[in-house]
Amino acid sequence: MSTFQPVRGMRDLIAEDAETLSYVIGKARETAQLFGFKEVITPVVEPFELLSAKSGEEIRQRMFIFDDLGGRKVSLRPEFTASIARLTTTTLKNEPKPLRLFSAGSVYRYDEPQKGRYREFWQANFELMGSGRPEADAEVILLANNLLKNTGLKNFALKLGHVGVLKGIMTQEGIDDKAQNAILQKMDKKEYETALALVDSENCRKILRGLIELKGANVFDTVDKMKTQVQGYEKAVAAVENLEAILRLVTESGCEIEVVDPAFARGLEYYTGVIFELYVPQLEIALGGGGRYDKLIEVFGGESTPAVGMATGIDRIALAMQAQKTRLQKPTQKRVTVIPIKEEQKAEALKIAQMLREAGLPAEFEVMGRKMGKALEDADKRKVDYAVIVGERELKEGKVVLKDLVGRTQAEVNIETLPSKIRENGC
Amino acid sequence: MSTFQPVRGMRDLIAEDAETLSYVIGKARETAQLFGFKEVITPVVEPFELLSAKSGEEIRQRMFIFDDLGGRKVSLRPEFTASIARLTTTTLKNEPKPLRLFSAGSVYRYDEPQKGRYREFWQANFELMGSGRPEADAEVILLANNLLKNTGLKNFALKLGHVGVLKGIMTQEGIDDKAQNAILQKMDKKEYETALALVDSENCRKILRGLIELKGANVFDTVDKMKTQVQGYEKAVAAVENLEAILRLVTESGCEIEVVDPAFARGLEYYTGVIFELYVPQLEIALGGGGRYDKLIEVFGGESTPAVGMATGIDRIALAMQAQKTRLQKPTQKRVTVIPIKEEQKAEALKIAQMLREAGLPAEFEVMGRKMGKALEDADKRKVDYAVIVGERELKEGKVVLKDLVGRTQAEVNIETLPSKIRENGC
Repeated sequence: MSTFQPVRGMRDLIAEDAETLSYVIGKARETAQLFGFKEVITPVVEPFELLSAKSGEEIRQRMFIFDDLGGRKVSLRPEFTASIARLTTTTLKNEPKPLRLFSAGSVYRYDEPQKGRYREFWQANFELMGSGRPEADAEVILLANNLLKNTGLKNFALKLGHVGVLKGIMTQEGIDDKAQNAILQKMDKKEYETALALVDSENCRKILRGLIELKGANVFDTVDKMKTQVQGYEKAVAAVENLEAILRLVTESGCEIEVVDPAFARGLEYYTGVIFELYVPQLEIALGGGGRYDKLIEVFGGESTPAVGMATGIDRIALAMQAQKTRLQKPTQKRVTVIPIKEEQKAEALKIAQMLREAGLPAEFEVMGRKMGKALEDADKRKVDYAVIVGERELKEGKVVLKDLVGRTQAEVNIETLPSKIRENGC
Repeated sequence: MSTFQPVRGMRDLIAEDAETLSYVIGKARETAQLFGFKEVITPVVEPFELLSAKSGEEIRQRMFIFDDLGGRKVSLRPEFTASIARLTTTTLKNEPKPLRLFSAGSVYRYDEPQKGRYREFWQANFELMGSGRPEADAEVILLANNLLKNTGLKNFALKLGHVGVLKGIMTQEGIDDKAQNAILQKMDKKEYETALALVDSENCRKILRGLIELKGANVFDTVDKMKTQVQGYEKAVAAVENLEAILRLVTESGCEIEVVDPAFARGLEYYTGVIFELYVPQLEIALGGGGRYDKLIEVFGGESTPAVGMATGIDRIALAMQAQKTRLQKPTQKRVTVIPIKEEQKAEALKIAQMLREAGLPAEFEVMGRKMGKALEDADKRKVDYAVIVGERELKEGKVVLKDLVGRTQAEVNIETLPSKIRENGC
């Protein structure tokens, strides 16, 4: 017995799990193309310096860090944004804006493993750089919406917020950035009382509490009430107006926003504007999220560049699809197995398998040298649709036996018409 | 200016480079499906113990090895086979044979970087486990052939050999495994004189030299001459007969074998039977290769399982395609940009962009808020095919202006007929 297992927190994906993951990546790529996003592929191994330039302490402590054989301090990427920012400030520096960039691949975080959380997981990442306008935010939110729709998920919900609202109030109240981040982190965890306890000014506490407790009849009503609540806080008012403009654009384009959360805060410190998250009722964790981060490119030494982006958890989308029993929307391909009756028909049978493949039909060849009965039994067990049986007598007439393993019928078929017969479901 | 660069030996792929890599992975996946291979996804990070169980010293010294935060000695995979063997002896242990497994992803080796050789590179890996018969070998070789054909590559060549021939002679001559491996490694590097100098017996040297110098009029003639050359070496004769059987199966299925090399040896010690490599005239390095390794699964603690497999270098196939200027065979999608004339038409314009995407047409939205002239100029530069211009007057009649940026024509078009107009190339 082998005692080899994957490293703790990592896992092997087989059968439907692998198929679904690969399918979701395909859908992400397709959706990226529909929105004019170009794929870029960056390394899994990045300089520690690059990855730590942006990540907060929390992520830094969970990174896989090591020295390579040349003594370079490197790390496995915990997400894509630092790598994409690097690209934007180097290779793509002189490209005309906007840049629309898509990536998909594995990322690494040393978290305590639990259901739906692994140390190696998969993300599809989208960044739109160069525009600070609401239509750029709207595009990324629509992309999130279309991506989930394209995977076949139902009942997913988008939650919207704007860090500029809370930040605008706190800044005007004289709370410094560090304290603001501490407060926002607590709010992100929905520890509202702890968050409020960190606020010195009673007036500010009152306004923030008002936002936390604010309920609207619908998303536009929520936004209206937010405006009233933040009156007098100039930057906060501007933030609510920005949120409203984005909300209008996406809803008028047919993308429903389930919730506008006035006290919504996402953990990462670098967001500067709209933020959003994606949910399905079957999972507590978000399937993805993103927002605007206008200052980030400067952190990487680039020119000031407004940007909005999002990361989606491919594993989580796959998990949601399995929870919803979503069927993969793929052309239904008939599976065929090709079986020579005797050794002497092996070459002819292999040639027929090749013909089917070249016609675009998946064909397995009987490589075990089993007797026909055994081979058919096995094909049946594995839910293969058709068996092509290659025997001496039929071959002499340019024919083979096509056996429908589902319908339990069979017929002699001319070899050249085999692909069309299989496609037309007939024998 | 940013000073961030990728880690030495790693690289970012953008534009055509990223597109081609992603395309080749897609073609590998498609070809795998056509041959009935199922995708499995294994971690990039594996236990050092697993990866070193199989790899020779040469690969071991070039692995990225480190301790994770839990003190586990881990490594980035230098190839797929160990992970697949792990799966076969654990999760898939009770699956009926044959197993046909496909993987694609990045692998890591600390080599001196040079053109076409990086420390992070991409492989598509195929393993057929459970059959020791020539038709299993033939299937994998046909798969290699079909994969390259499906990418659109021309003039590629397959080279075949059989390690059983050289090993059979040396074993019968009493040369032990360790010495055999040393000799085969030299032969792999075409250092034939050095290899022969390691052989004690003069008779054995003579036979081996005969194989090294053997030339046939064609591949079948080469095999015939090999048979004569190894007469009296029972296992070597059986190996040549096995090679011949495989050669017949693949050539009769329409796959041409360019060369049978009687002195062909592939570096990895674990091959036991047929071996092969893929080449194009434009590149000196092989695009991929593989062979039979009947003893490997036992190394990982599994039951004795005959197996044949291959790894293809996705980066190298992409490089070969670029050298051959291979066009990616994709449905030609028209690219569209949607431009609102004024702020007031923004929401309507975005809605139209969404309609196009839902009809399967890639549509960019003008997110920079530029005036129409500027936006068109930019679209022109980026070779966008069509611009949809959304203005107040036309909107009132349910119309927009469709501008063919290639043909330099334009027309007013009903919004609902826009997708079909763009598809039909007309305005």
